[in-house]
Amino acid sequence: MAGHTPANPNWEVVVREGFARQAVMAFLGARTGRLAPGEAEIVLPFRPELGQQNGLLHAGIVAAIADSACGGAALSLMPPGSNVLSIEFKLNLLVPAAGDHFSARARVIRAGRTVTVCAADVFAISGTSEVLVATMLGTMMRRATEAS
Amino acid sequence: MAGHTPANPNWEVVVREGFARQAVMAFLGARTGRLAPGEAEIVLPFRPELGQQNGLLHAGIVAAIADSACGGAALSLMPPGSNVLSIEFKLNLLVPAAGDHFSARARVIRAGRTVTVCAADVFAISGTSEVLVATMLGTMMRRATEAS
Amino acid sequence: MAGHTPANPNWEVVVREGFARQAVMAFLGARTGRLAPGEAEIVLPFRPELGQQNGLLHAGIVAAIADSACGGAALSLMPPGSNVLSIEFKLNLLVPAAGDHFSARARVIRAGRTVTVCAADVFAISGTSEVLVATMLGTMMRRATEAS
Amino acid sequence: MAGHTPANPNWEVVVREGFARQAVMAFLGARTGRLAPGEAEIVLPFRPELGQQNGLLHAGIVAAIADSACGGAALSLMPPGSNVLSIEFKLNLLVPAAGDHFSARARVIRAGRTVTVCAADVFAISGTSEVLVATMLGTMMRRATEAS
Repeated sequence: MAGHTPANPNWEVVVREGFARQAVMAFLGARTGRLAPGEAEIVLPFRPELGQQNGLLHAGIVAAIADSACGGAALSLMPPGSNVLSIEFKLNLLVPAAGDHFSARARVIRAGRTVTVCAADVFAISGTSEVLVATMLGTMMRRATEAS
Repeated sequence: MAGHTPANPNWEVVVREGFARQAVMAFLGARTGRLAPGEAEIVLPFRPELGQQNGLLHAGIVAAIADSACGGAALSLMPPGSNVLSIEFKLNLLVPAAGDHFSARARVIRAGRTVTVCAADVFAISGTSEVLVATMLGTMMRRATEAS
Repeated sequence: MAGHTPANPNWEVVVREGFARQAVMAFLGARTGRLAPGEAEIVLPFRPELGQQNGLLHAGIVAAIADSACGGAALSLMPPGSNVLSIEFKLNLLVPAAGDHFSARARVIRAGRTVTVCAADVFAISGTSEVLVATMLGTMMRRATEAS
Repeated sequence: MAGHTPANPNWEVVVREGFARQAVMAFLGARTGRLAPGEAEIVLPFRPELGQQNGLLHAGIVAAIADSACGGAALSLMPPGSNVLSIEFKLNLLVPAAGDHFSARARVIRAGRTVTVCAADVFAISGTSEVLVATMLGTMMRRATEAS
């Protein structure tokens, strides 16, 4: 996980712009957190309208922030002119997703030329308490952007 | 898949009420579609604010409707006094999720006393065209409701 | 699932040769069953040495035959000069894997140029009884063979 | 991951006996490695008869040792009288599984009363080189043994 060398010196701008173009992130109220080569964090304050039947964060929204974090982590290591698409992911929900806000922290496990495998942990944060509520393992694919 | 016998004669009311209590479904603009014992459909009209960086439906939102459909399918076969929680799911994104609206159709593969395994297919629909864009395999767990 | 058109008229020979080169299939005692474009079956007689702690077929061996079946299904639709590799798979174990023999039946869900998504069902067969014991959803990748 | 407290002071005997009863582990030539509360390692020397079509370790065998390691890690934290069953797992194959021997190292991510979530990394080892070749995320379930 440590020591990833970005292929694009401009990686952070690319990752931030990628998030900014994801309309759903604004719709959910999510924003980027800490970024590093091969790592990305998405932060989401809880809102009741994101809840499932028991008022917990819906598993699909947990998946949404974990997936976007994985996409950002993968994109951070890709060469210029790259678009990142999710091929697949698996999410385990560990404990009830209750918290004031949530942090999805993704890291690249293996960056290939075409396929990048990422993991993400999602934490529920309330005051100083931080609880691991879900974990994702997913596969991202590089596509050349049309302009490149 | 065929021939599921519901353990609760009131299963349809229970499933509809379960969906109605999922605030996020209204927030996304999703509604229930066809319901049957062991099957559930969620329908979601596309809205630009649900998009990812290329304007396609975000993979997390695909996951959200597929997961809710799986939850409904699982709940339809559970005895009275049941709450359904997602333990885990895996989603494969097959082709770009572009369409006027989306339909997530879930079915129970195996209903156990505690654990129910479900699959869901997500279709993108535009006019008369219907394209399979994603498929989910997931595990749901029964919890007794507090009142039961 | 129906109506797959093979890109290689010689697909069946390629799939059978691919299985024959998998040493582990002979080691486990598995053989190919029904093959069709986009579909492949692996049959495995039960042997006590394939068991886990309760004498059931070990989940890893269930995975092995399901994965090989997925590989065969994917390979059947690839052009000449293709090698197939598993990127990832997810397996759900549904009921105890007890039977005289096992049949893993895979089908292509979506065949892309590089990535093919497959599903496989594994049945335990004893006399005339056939029980679905596991289901897999996996992703296969095409690699050009060195000779091509 | 650190600081797991075993519920059974006899956990190590239980885990070793559980492995010893898995006939398939002897059949493959696998043995237990390092054990700790919430952690388990399985070591497998490579043998050509475990290979796939390119002579690499077959993905199903990678899954078998990772799954058994997950089962051991989960079992190590369970109370006396427990049997562990795999509900499901997902395996990502990262690079070609070539090596003199393989080590599957599992750890408990979340131990619940019934359901335990585990992760495992599989390394290919050749001389002093150790390469991460696969990673698993899986769900294990506790069942009371018949005698308890």
